[in-house]
Amino acid sequence: MDLSRLSEFGWIERIRRAAARKGVPRHVVVGIGDDAAVLRPRKEEDVVVSTDALVEDAHFRWRTDPARQVGRRAVAASLSDLAAMGARPLGVTVAFAGPGDLPVKRLDAVTAGLLDVCSACEAPLVGGNVARARRTSLTVTAVGAVGRGRALRRDAARRGDRILVTGRLGESALARARAGRVGRVMHVPEPRLAAGQALARASWAGACIDLSDGLVGDLGHVLEASQVGARVAVAQFPRRKGFEAACRRAHLDPARTLLAGGEDYELLFTVRPGAPSVAVLERRLGIAVSEIGTIVARGLRIEGATATGRSGFRHF
Amino acid sequence: MDLSRLSEFGWIERIRRAAARKGVPRHVVVGIGDDAAVLRPRKEEDVVVSTDALVEDAHFRWRTDPARQVGRRAVAASLSDLAAMGARPLGVTVAFAGPGDLPVKRLDAVTAGLLDVCSACEAPLVGGNVARARRTSLTVTAVGAVGRGRALRRDAARRGDRILVTGRLGESALARARAGRVGRVMHVPEPRLAAGQALARASWAGACIDLSDGLVGDLGHVLEASQVGARVAVAQFPRRKGFEAACRRAHLDPARTLLAGGEDYELLFTVRPGAPSVAVLERRLGIAVSEIGTIVARGLRIEGATATGRSGFRHF
Repeated sequence: MDLSRLSEFGWIERIRRAAARKGVPRHVVVGIGDDAAVLRPRKEEDVVVSTDALVEDAHFRWRTDPARQVGRRAVAASLSDLAAMGARPLGVTVAFAGPGDLPVKRLDAVTAGLLDVCSACEAPLVGGNVARARRTSLTVTAVGAVGRGRALRRDAARRGDRILVTGRLGESALARARAGRVGRVMHVPEPRLAAGQALARASWAGACIDLSDGLVGDLGHVLEASQVGARVAVAQFPRRKGFEAACRRAHLDPARTLLAGGEDYELLFTVRPGAPSVAVLERRLGIAVSEIGTIVARGLRIEGATATGRSGFRHF
Repeated sequence: MDLSRLSEFGWIERIRRAAARKGVPRHVVVGIGDDAAVLRPRKEEDVVVSTDALVEDAHFRWRTDPARQVGRRAVAASLSDLAAMGARPLGVTVAFAGPGDLPVKRLDAVTAGLLDVCSACEAPLVGGNVARARRTSLTVTAVGAVGRGRALRRDAARRGDRILVTGRLGESALARARAGRVGRVMHVPEPRLAAGQALARASWAGACIDLSDGLVGDLGHVLEASQVGARVAVAQFPRRKGFEAACRRAHLDPARTLLAGGEDYELLFTVRPGAPSVAVLERRLGIAVSEIGTIVARGLRIEGATATGRSGFRHF
C-alpha cells in the first residue's frame, strides 16, 4: 500500500496512533488533534524554538539511508539546537511531505524513527502537518524551555574563555564516507540535551553552539557573533581510537575531517577562566569534554593545520 | 539572478535583513541568527504551537498566484491556528525550500508577503531554515501564548451551547473559482487573533476551531471531539451581499459553497447559553459574528440543505 491510498486524515491518524502509544507527559496540555498544541513551561522560563528540514536528495536518499534513520536524524538535528541553547524539550512538530507512491511501510518506519528520538529525549510529538509533494521532506520544529535569561548564546564568548567540545569529532564525516562506498547507514547524532541544560545553569558558562557545519565554520559563527578571535590546537581535538587509520581507509584527510567534517552535533562551548577543570566539567555535564583552545582578541589560529584555501586543511 | 547564485547563508542573510527592517518586539530575547530563537511569555502562560505547510502544485501555482500572496497566505494559515486556540503570537519560524532556478526576486516577494502578515499580526519572524528542493514549499510554525488553562479547544462544546461564526463564509471558494477562470489572486485570510484572545478570556466560551476544511467538516471535528451533535440553519450563515449571484457567475452552488467551501479561516465557536447577545459579542470580539445554530445531544441536522452524499449539498 502507498500513500495515495490514504487520505490526509488517514496519514495523521496513523502518526497520531503511533505517537499515542508512547504516552503523553504532563506538560503537554493539548497534543495532536486540535488546531495547535498547548505546552506548559515552568514559571519564569523562556521559550526556545528551532526549525530544521531534511529534504530527499539534498540530505538523504532512500537508496542508501534506512527510513527509520531518516526519521531519527530529522528530530535529532532539531533537538540539538535546543541543546545548544541549554533548553529542555517541551515538544516537537513535524511537517511531512511525500509523494503518493511512497510506501506506507516507509512512512511508518520514518514515524518510528521520529518517535525513537522523541522518546529518548522526552520531547513528545505534539503536532504537525502532512502534504503531498514530489519529493519527501521532513520539517521538524522543536520547542523547549530554559530558565529566564539563561539561554546559551553564540555571542557570549569573551577573551580569556577556554574553548571546549563534547564527545568526538569527525564521526559523521566518516559515516558518510563509508555510506558512499559500502551503503552503510547514516550517522544519527545524539542531542547533548543534558550537557546543554547543565551548562545553562552554570555561572561560568560562556557561548555555545552545536556543530552542524563543522568545527571551523561553527567556531567562526561564535567568533563573529561575539566579536572575538580564537586559538585552537588540532592535537587536542577529540577523536576515536584509530581515527587516522579509519580516515585513510575512507580516503579522508584526518585534520580536514576534524576541522570541517560537519554534522557531528556535538556542543562547542566556552567557559570563563575560573571554571572547573575538565574532569569536574565532565562530571557536571555528564559527558566527555575536551579543551581545544582559548578565546583571544581577534583572528583564528589553528595549531597543527595549514590552511589551503577557504575550507581546506593539510597535515597535523 | 536565481537561487543557485546564493549560498544558504546568502538566502538567510537576505531574509534576516528584510525581517530586521520590521523591528523586533521586546518579548523576542534572541531572534534570527542563533541556534534557536528565545521568546518570553508572560507569567502563568501556556505555550501554543502549530505547524502548517504550503506546497507548490498542491496549494499554489506560480502561474496564477502572486509570490507575495503565497508568502502572506503561508503565515496567515498558521496564525489562524493560534487564533483558534485564543493565543497571542510570540513569533513564527519559516522553513523555505526551493529550486535553484527560482528567481531571487520571487524569493524576495515571498519574504515580503511573509513579513506583511508577521507585521500586521505582531508575530515576528524569529527563525527557520532554507534548503534546496525541486518544488517550492513553505512550512510555517507559529508559537504563541495564552493564559494558563485558557486555551480554546475543540472538545469543549456542550449540549445547549449556541454556535457562532466570525466574518463571512465562502469567500475563499469564490476567490479560487475566479482564479481558475481569470487568473485572479488567491484569497489571503485575516487571522482572527483579537477575537480568539477575547474569547479565551471569557467565562462563557465553549469550543473553538478555525474553518480550514469547510464548515461541515470543521464543525464535525468539534462534534466528534466534544461527543455532541448540532443543528444549524444555512439561512443564518453569514455571506456577502449578492453572494448567490456571485456563486452562479462562478458556477458554484451557493449552499454547498457555504457549507463546504473551505479555507475561509474564520472562527467557528460555541458559547454557553447564558453568554451575551450577538450585538454584545460583536463588541467584545471586535468583529461581526453570526449565530448559526445550537449544540444538541447527537447527530448533525442542517436546515436548508439536502445532503447528496458525503460532501455534497443541494439547494437552500
